[in-house]
Amino acid sequence: MSQTPPVRWTGDTHRTDGVLERGFTLEVEGRRVPGVVWTPPDAEGARPLVLIGHGATAHKTFGYVSALARDLVRKHGFAAVAIDGAGHGDRRPNPGDDETRIFSDFLGEWSRDGSTDEAVADWQATLDAVRQLPEVGDGPVGYWGLSMGTIYGVPLVAAERRIQVAVFGLMGLVGPTRDRMGVDARNLACPVLFIQQWDDSLIPRDSVFELFEAVGSLDKRLHASPGEHSKVPAEEFVFSSRFLARHLAPGDDDLT
Amino acid sequence: MSQTPPVRWTGDTHRTDGVLERGFTLEVEGRRVPGVVWTPPDAEGARPLVLIGHGATAHKTFGYVSALARDLVRKHGFAAVAIDGAGHGDRRPNPGDDETRIFSDFLGEWSRDGSTDEAVADWQATLDAVRQLPEVGDGPVGYWGLSMGTIYGVPLVAAERRIQVAVFGLMGLVGPTRDRMGVDARNLACPVLFIQQWDDSLIPRDSVFELFEAVGSLDKRLHASPGEHSKVPAEEFVFSSRFLARHLAPGDDDLT
Repeated sequence: MSQTPPVRWTGDTHRTDGVLERGFTLEVEGRRVPGVVWTPPDAEGARPLVLIGHGATAHKTFGYVSALARDLVRKHGFAAVAIDGAGHGDRRPNPGDDETRIFSDFLGEWSRDGSTDEAVADWQATLDAVRQLPEVGDGPVGYWGLSMGTIYGVPLVAAERRIQVAVFGLMGLVGPTRDRMGVDARNLACPVLFIQQWDDSLIPRDSVFELFEAVGSLDKRLHASPGEHSKVPAEEFVFSSRFLARHLAPGDDDLT
Repeated sequence: MSQTPPVRWTGDTHRTDGVLERGFTLEVEGRRVPGVVWTPPDAEGARPLVLIGHGATAHKTFGYVSALARDLVRKHGFAAVAIDGAGHGDRRPNPGDDETRIFSDFLGEWSRDGSTDEAVADWQATLDAVRQLPEVGDGPVGYWGLSMGTIYGVPLVAAERRIQVAVFGLMGLVGPTRDRMGVDARNLACPVLFIQQWDDSLIPRDSVFELFEAVGSLDKRLHASPGEHSKVPAEEFVFSSRFLARHLAPGDDDLT
């Protein structure tokens, strides 16, 4: 493992509804990686940490990312962290670009050799950096990421033994990295929740089954709900939060 | 609706761990239908009721049936009821028959014209009878039944407007009643949880997807877990109980 990269706290700090939200920037192999960490305001000592990977066209404080992070902090006292993916959020040269442009850039990035390795390195540096905070420390770690958050999350969790539970979904064995995704999926060993949208017109249903099938973890489950790619129901966010908490803080509550 | 059939309480009553369990027998169109109802011991007034349909070779007080009933009573104060299916439990002439014989009789029964209509009538008579108890009354009703409990449960819930939420699974559009099951599934309108075992060698995976697809309810979800037909994990029983409670007693608790 390389030396922990320098973190710069941006001073962009909010404290609302029992959650402290702090912005930071990391330098990783010459790339500037902006992130946000959420903790209880009065947190002391190590606690579980959840890494949240956003989907294509979203960013580190997008609606569902921030909502899940705040739920984990408030309900379970966990820490959560999100970073902008390459070509997303504060990593875009032009913040005014529309969704179509961001998505087409993402397709280019997905096809670029090295994009997966860089995303994994960005997350590993983030994990190293955030665990330097005494109120995060060396507690157990989980990962949550759908769609693009699964494209880069499967290789991350396969490579990163510190991650002990993961939520993936809205993805199949498709696209430029399908072969690598398949290999990495087979190397997964931690408990996995896989979320599918039954009427997802972006990701063919059979390719989703192929990816779920490939996941090597014995402890895995697939949850499918009607509707399109982006229409994951609230029920699955609630279940995600309980699922992560059940594994990261097993004595916590009646969380099964 | 026909007149409520006469109930005979068998006097087989147990009171253990905060649950009152009472045996009964109904006469339905000349058939003797034995059942068990579970309630809180001190229950007064109407409450939600869950009908639990057992799988082939099981019976009305089989392990998972009784465990789910007791969980619903203890955690949520509900009532639950189960009956022996045709050729099962106390409806077998010879109680000593082994599982193979019971299963082969079930396959014969499944193929018999009228078996679905009779099972639906047995359940409707049971529902009428149990709601006569003042401590059950006219509260909301749910259904839970996997495998054979889905074969007869889908037609029951499609026919029975009093049932407002259902858990099905371990079944596909297969077997002698597949056409009728498809039609009835399309007529379902209540919230549905559908449980699948990913490595079920009895029920082809694609036929399970066909049945889930056919379910007409807009509010439905499919949960798939690794393993064989009978290996439904505890997690799905816990989720079943919460799912039923969330719909039958919406103000009850943080049950989402």
